[in-house]
Amino acid sequence: MSVELRWNQYGKSRVRLARVSRHGDRHDFRDLTVGVHFQGDFAAAHTQGDNTGVLPTDTMKNTVYALAADREPGEIEEFGLRLEAHFLKSNPQVSRVRIDLVEHPWTRVAVGAGAHPHAFLKTGPECRTATVTGTREGVIVEAGIGDLTILKTTRSSFAGFHKDAYTTLPETEDRILGTVVQASWIYATAEVAFGPCRQAVRRTLIETFAGHDSRSVQQTAYAMGQAVLESHEQIEEIRLSLPNRHCLPVDLRPFGLENRNEVFMPVEEPHGLIEVKLGRRAGGSG
Amino acid sequence: MSVELRWNQYGKSRVRLARVSRHGDRHDFRDLTVGVHFQGDFAAAHTQGDNTGVLPTDTMKNTVYALAADREPGEIEEFGLRLEAHFLKSNPQVSRVRIDLVEHPWTRVAVGAGAHPHAFLKTGPECRTATVTGTREGVIVEAGIGDLTILKTTRSSFAGFHKDAYTTLPETEDRILGTVVQASWIYATAEVAFGPCRQAVRRTLIETFAGHDSRSVQQTAYAMGQAVLESHEQIEEIRLSLPNRHCLPVDLRPFGLENRNEVFMPVEEPHGLIEVKLGRRAGGSG
Amino acid sequence: MSVELRWNQYGKSRVRLARVSRHGDRHDFRDLTVGVHFQGDFAAAHTQGDNTGVLPTDTMKNTVYALAADREPGEIEEFGLRLEAHFLKSNPQVSRVRIDLVEHPWTRVAVGAGAHPHAFLKTGPECRTATVTGTREGVIVEAGIGDLTILKTTRSSFAGFHKDAYTTLPETEDRILGTVVQASWIYATAEVAFGPCRQAVRRTLIETFAGHDSRSVQQTAYAMGQAVLESHEQIEEIRLSLPNRHCLPVDLRPFGLENRNEVFMPVEEPHGLIEVKLGRRAGGSG
Amino acid sequence: MSVELRWNQYGKSRVRLARVSRHGDRHDFRDLTVGVHFQGDFAAAHTQGDNTGVLPTDTMKNTVYALAADREPGEIEEFGLRLEAHFLKSNPQVSRVRIDLVEHPWTRVAVGAGAHPHAFLKTGPECRTATVTGTREGVIVEAGIGDLTILKTTRSSFAGFHKDAYTTLPETEDRILGTVVQASWIYATAEVAFGPCRQAVRRTLIETFAGHDSRSVQQTAYAMGQAVLESHEQIEEIRLSLPNRHCLPVDLRPFGLENRNEVFMPVEEPHGLIEVKLGRRAGGSG
Repeated sequence: MSVELRWNQYGKSRVRLARVSRHGDRHDFRDLTVGVHFQGDFAAAHTQGDNTGVLPTDTMKNTVYALAADREPGEIEEFGLRLEAHFLKSNPQVSRVRIDLVEHPWTRVAVGAGAHPHAFLKTGPECRTATVTGTREGVIVEAGIGDLTILKTTRSSFAGFHKDAYTTLPETEDRILGTVVQASWIYATAEVAFGPCRQAVRRTLIETFAGHDSRSVQQTAYAMGQAVLESHEQIEEIRLSLPNRHCLPVDLRPFGLENRNEVFMPVEEPHGLIEVKLGRRAGGSG
Repeated sequence: MSVELRWNQYGKSRVRLARVSRHGDRHDFRDLTVGVHFQGDFAAAHTQGDNTGVLPTDTMKNTVYALAADREPGEIEEFGLRLEAHFLKSNPQVSRVRIDLVEHPWTRVAVGAGAHPHAFLKTGPECRTATVTGTREGVIVEAGIGDLTILKTTRSSFAGFHKDAYTTLPETEDRILGTVVQASWIYATAEVAFGPCRQAVRRTLIETFAGHDSRSVQQTAYAMGQAVLESHEQIEEIRLSLPNRHCLPVDLRPFGLENRNEVFMPVEEPHGLIEVKLGRRAGGSG
Repeated sequence: MSVELRWNQYGKSRVRLARVSRHGDRHDFRDLTVGVHFQGDFAAAHTQGDNTGVLPTDTMKNTVYALAADREPGEIEEFGLRLEAHFLKSNPQVSRVRIDLVEHPWTRVAVGAGAHPHAFLKTGPECRTATVTGTREGVIVEAGIGDLTILKTTRSSFAGFHKDAYTTLPETEDRILGTVVQASWIYATAEVAFGPCRQAVRRTLIETFAGHDSRSVQQTAYAMGQAVLESHEQIEEIRLSLPNRHCLPVDLRPFGLENRNEVFMPVEEPHGLIEVKLGRRAGGSG
Repeated sequence: MSVELRWNQYGKSRVRLARVSRHGDRHDFRDLTVGVHFQGDFAAAHTQGDNTGVLPTDTMKNTVYALAADREPGEIEEFGLRLEAHFLKSNPQVSRVRIDLVEHPWTRVAVGAGAHPHAFLKTGPECRTATVTGTREGVIVEAGIGDLTILKTTRSSFAGFHKDAYTTLPETEDRILGTVVQASWIYATAEVAFGPCRQAVRRTLIETFAGHDSRSVQQTAYAMGQAVLESHEQIEEIRLSLPNRHCLPVDLRPFGLENRNEVFMPVEEPHGLIEVKLGRRAGGSG
């Protein structure tokens, strides 16, 4: 019998990086988690234990620190591009480099009307994400937002759905709609003002979720993606993953109370999960 | 041989509650986790399987929902007081009720210059905590802040410490000081404006951490507690738990780079842990 | 501008199922987590809020319980096949159903030389996984093992690797090799004795890991996959994901002690990650 | 106003230690998490930033590694005793040392009828715990078992309980009883064969849980503690914490199926929590 290596990838995950930049008294602080993954000509390592082409994953980690040292990282997409270019250039045996980046946001401590020069509070759960994928042919920059936890207490219904013998869910014209948005989008070019663009996309996502009259998570997810594509020309494609984090109404009648749609039990499992990928129609004039 | 039941407690943990309040178009949204724990005359349940005095923990859960339904929960300390009073009153076999409350904060989505009437973003990791403990003699209200994740990039040293044969830590005059504050304080009275007081304590903790020149986490923890007691007369005692979430400087010299105290590796484990409890000195006139 | 829906999927994640089967005094206990995901003709739901084709994810959950009730689930692959067939048959609007299954193993409590009839201990962290994917053209059964946490204290080296300016890792002829295996494999047919086959694959994976002289995780991952394909003819393809859960040697010389390769600090992050997919070569005679 | 330091403690948490012992070809592997916490004369550190008495927590960590290097750790209670004695002896400013230990069990890989000499599988979720607390007056050894996840499918009822206006729980004569046992016990002496004793206590806990006809978790917790005290004379006191990890029966009638007490939904939150501490009665003759 004959076995073939159909696909392989290796790298370093969860490289933790904190970066301080000192501008006189005023410091900046950044907090990133970085992953580096290679594809390429590594068959000999797998089949014969020949490590001559294998850059240690420890070196990948060191490189993250070294490149964060000689210059400020900048936007995570920019830091990803620098890492990707470095690895592709210095590793001819590599055909594809993927850099995964997560930025954990911190905000300056407020003092009076101003902001503290060197003290920071971690905010969350929302984080910023990016994936930079480089090959010998080019590079793809994907930016994103993770764990954007958002909820609306009305303007969400779910009715008129398909029913079968196991359907017990009542139709509802007014429910809580809560989700933890995972969004990522591909730029048509790497010449983007990544920071402002991300802020603008974020605003579009949030405003669409909040303003939209939802007939399903499916409809809301589509509306969010559509709004981003319509208002951000540099974006070629967007993916959205929206878990439906159910808030179940508590039945208060056994306690002699009226159900007024005010008291809910949030549950983490099970949860619905709605995923979409939207893009621009080729030749579309709209 | 003779066995005795030295202590016992039972209750319900992690009751999840979401509460919507509708004021015309403008909604409020609250997200709590509640625990209820009883002590009392339960020996027969333990030793003989006699359940006549045992209120089911399922009923404790139901009670959280029922009391959240008939009126808005208000500040978590107030909701805890209502629950505590209810359980003590209706359960003569109970000598001590403890209500644990965590509030997971959500903030209104910003729209233009205003705030959205019914869409909310979850913020964190920081949360609000309270513990209300009632007996037949009285009640103690403890309020707190959990997971306040804060960091300063300078004005922290650690030097002049005790050394032994296993000490390798270099002295430092300038390090990152990062922590995840768990703070809780006991009010001398239940007649407190809990919300504003918590906000004020929070500000004191943050400003002290940020403004303080730290020679150790020990000194910083004490300074934070001292500042709270000095500026908030209603508070009788405060506990602080400050893990030292180390950011280790990465040694860049092997990469041909200079160490400028800018590049760090944050580590989650191991971590230092400094804990203090501060109170007012009896008869202190200060 | 014109937007297109390039891909969409929806379903229910983390449906928790416990199933007791009573055979006289002797009970069986099963503990599963199930996910159900649909693809199909759902454009109208996304673009127009038309839910007529949308089976609620709540109904997917109910179906898991209903199908677990009328018959014992059997092997998770079999239960997945039943669910997949049910959903495809009763939902003409669906083109593709994916059922994800995880079984959390429990073992009977030992009593004397025997096994208790109705008491069970949870074992782990290892779990069993399966994914059944059905379309109108056919079905693919993928089985797997998750979180198989395994380690060897010798017979693992890493040397002769590629070095660059940022490489500081010393070559080693004797290191701890620890990993958390995620393995999944595709059967060439659905006519498999799933339980015995999984047990046999598991044994092959563990014995290969233990017996293999490792020159890299890459080589070990390949050897594990190769051994499975060579000894299990029903398997068409196998994927392995092996994080390198590093145990870093602690340098004891500063404490006046000799380094004898006995004391290590296990770290969770960062970690290496080696991934492979192996298959049978078409027409291979080997 | 005058502030007093009512209590303080500091130390290092989550020191991760892996230890290999080589006995010819046959290796042993141990995996521990250790914490070290001091109380003592540290007021000057808190109030004045005077670190002269402060042993760095980094040195605590180093000491764990150094003492694990010069000799095999042995049972975790023994390793804790060595650490406690070391710290008390070399730190006159310390009045109380607490060593927390968790052992994460690994088992040898089976090969044929035997056991592999150097390959190991992690088992769990159960772990072994110990806490050694030393003062100038003496030492207390507390041993324990954590996360022992156990369940019985019958011989558990809950009926005859107290009911109020919010009680909706039906009485049941036959339910699943599942829990995650946290047990710890105090030895009357440090002269104990810790390993065999722990094994025996574990067996007693499991057999009592399995064999006991439970009328409540309260009764079961008491019975478990009582059985341990009655059969292990060296044990002075035992604490048990038993969450009630509910398996809720799924109502199948809406699906046209009969409820036969076979299909359940396990839920993680909310959960009951029953806690007891049992000891020997002074002067008890039994």
